[in-house]
Amino acid sequence: MTTETATRLRDLHTRTSPLILPNVWDAASARAVEAAGFPVVATGSSAMAAVLGYEDGEHTPPAEMLAAVARIVRAVGVPVTADMERGYGLKPAELVERLLEAGASGCNLEDSGRDGLIDREEQADFLAAVRAAAGADLVVNARVDTYVAGDRTTADALIRGRRYLEAGADCVYPIGLADAEEIGALAAQLPINVLFRPGAPSLEELAALGVVRVSYGHGLHKAAHTYAEGLFAAVREGRNPYQ
Amino acid sequence: MTTETATRLRDLHTRTSPLILPNVWDAASARAVEAAGFPVVATGSSAMAAVLGYEDGEHTPPAEMLAAVARIVRAVGVPVTADMERGYGLKPAELVERLLEAGASGCNLEDSGRDGLIDREEQADFLAAVRAAAGADLVVNARVDTYVAGDRTTADALIRGRRYLEAGADCVYPIGLADAEEIGALAAQLPINVLFRPGAPSLEELAALGVVRVSYGHGLHKAAHTYAEGLFAAVREGRNPYQ
Repeated sequence: MTTETATRLRDLHTRTSPLILPNVWDAASARAVEAAGFPVVATGSSAMAAVLGYEDGEHTPPAEMLAAVARIVRAVGVPVTADMERGYGLKPAELVERLLEAGASGCNLEDSGRDGLIDREEQADFLAAVRAAAGADLVVNARVDTYVAGDRTTADALIRGRRYLEAGADCVYPIGLADAEEIGALAAQLPINVLFRPGAPSLEELAALGVVRVSYGHGLHKAAHTYAEGLFAAVREGRNPYQ
Repeated sequence: MTTETATRLRDLHTRTSPLILPNVWDAASARAVEAAGFPVVATGSSAMAAVLGYEDGEHTPPAEMLAAVARIVRAVGVPVTADMERGYGLKPAELVERLLEAGASGCNLEDSGRDGLIDREEQADFLAAVRAAAGADLVVNARVDTYVAGDRTTADALIRGRRYLEAGADCVYPIGLADAEEIGALAAQLPINVLFRPGAPSLEELAALGVVRVSYGHGLHKAAHTYAEGLFAAVREGRNPYQ
């Protein structure tokens, strides 16, 4: 939105008290997150695609995803960071321009697609171009997909993470990383975002490991959607869904 | 969408087996309703407004509401009927044209606004103009708001209901009506839509009373949203929200 809002978002990434982001899927869930006392709203691209009627994996037209981000920005008073998959085919300058127009203060960008991991230098160039276009106005969280589309080694995640930070990212996000020891090893060297998963370290443990940001991906929407499916099933069976 | 789809929707309004409509709020909930085996998807205007970031009461720009309806139509294979409040200020011909463009097969239209009940003849003229523009291509469910904004008598609801059917409505919807005896009295004389409410007659009882259509308004979204609020509260308290 503005340099000031992006700075406010950036300053919330600290090793002592990580930024907690229960990812939202629409304006109503965004308002609920703000009302619950969170200082930032983060969208989840998979859940956003689902509520717009699209499959995950860059199937959402960029105009629809950006309009949905803009609705969320309009609905809340806190900074909004937008999960943008790989950028939906937009060139870096256009991607930045349209994110800022939508009022976003940050974005997630992935380094893998349907054909697997993107070449590291290609992705670093992309992130550098995003940074050049955005200046200080966007907090860039660079996904490192080596744990879901690569060889799953700490060494490989470190190499990519360092390269993306050099290119201008503010934070790196090794999605799929769940082992406490590995999280600690990476968090000691890089500002990292960890996806919260049941069975993986708790929020308290992630904070102690030095993680600067924790997000929930599509997990919360999935849980709410499963609950809604139960309501519809109750109606279908002729029962009172509110009991 | 087409006369054929609207006819399919119209034919599902029967006194022996009412059309059950667990109202949806986005493409994901619409898909879940279709997957649960329902033959029709109905939107709920209040829930749709909330997920788009607007207050209930015609605050949603018509283009946004219609785009949301179109996303739902695109996401499912069954007929979609759209809850359109009072028509968002659109003239009848434009309202019909845009509903058909969005792919809707039916709509709900209310006879009250912020200033209370609309004059009965004015609303009948509006409904007649909608029917003239739509031909057989839209199933029109005319709200009768006497139980929420009027004198709450069966006589008054009957007068309005009959007048709206004469004007071309397919079904009338006395929202707020919950008493079994009154429901039976109205259902014996008019094709009516009843809003399901906890503590009011069950689906089985509503069918036995001769109701042709049962909907859930914003109730299901409200329940799912409350569930989501619980997830966000768990995250805020540092707990695992999935437990």
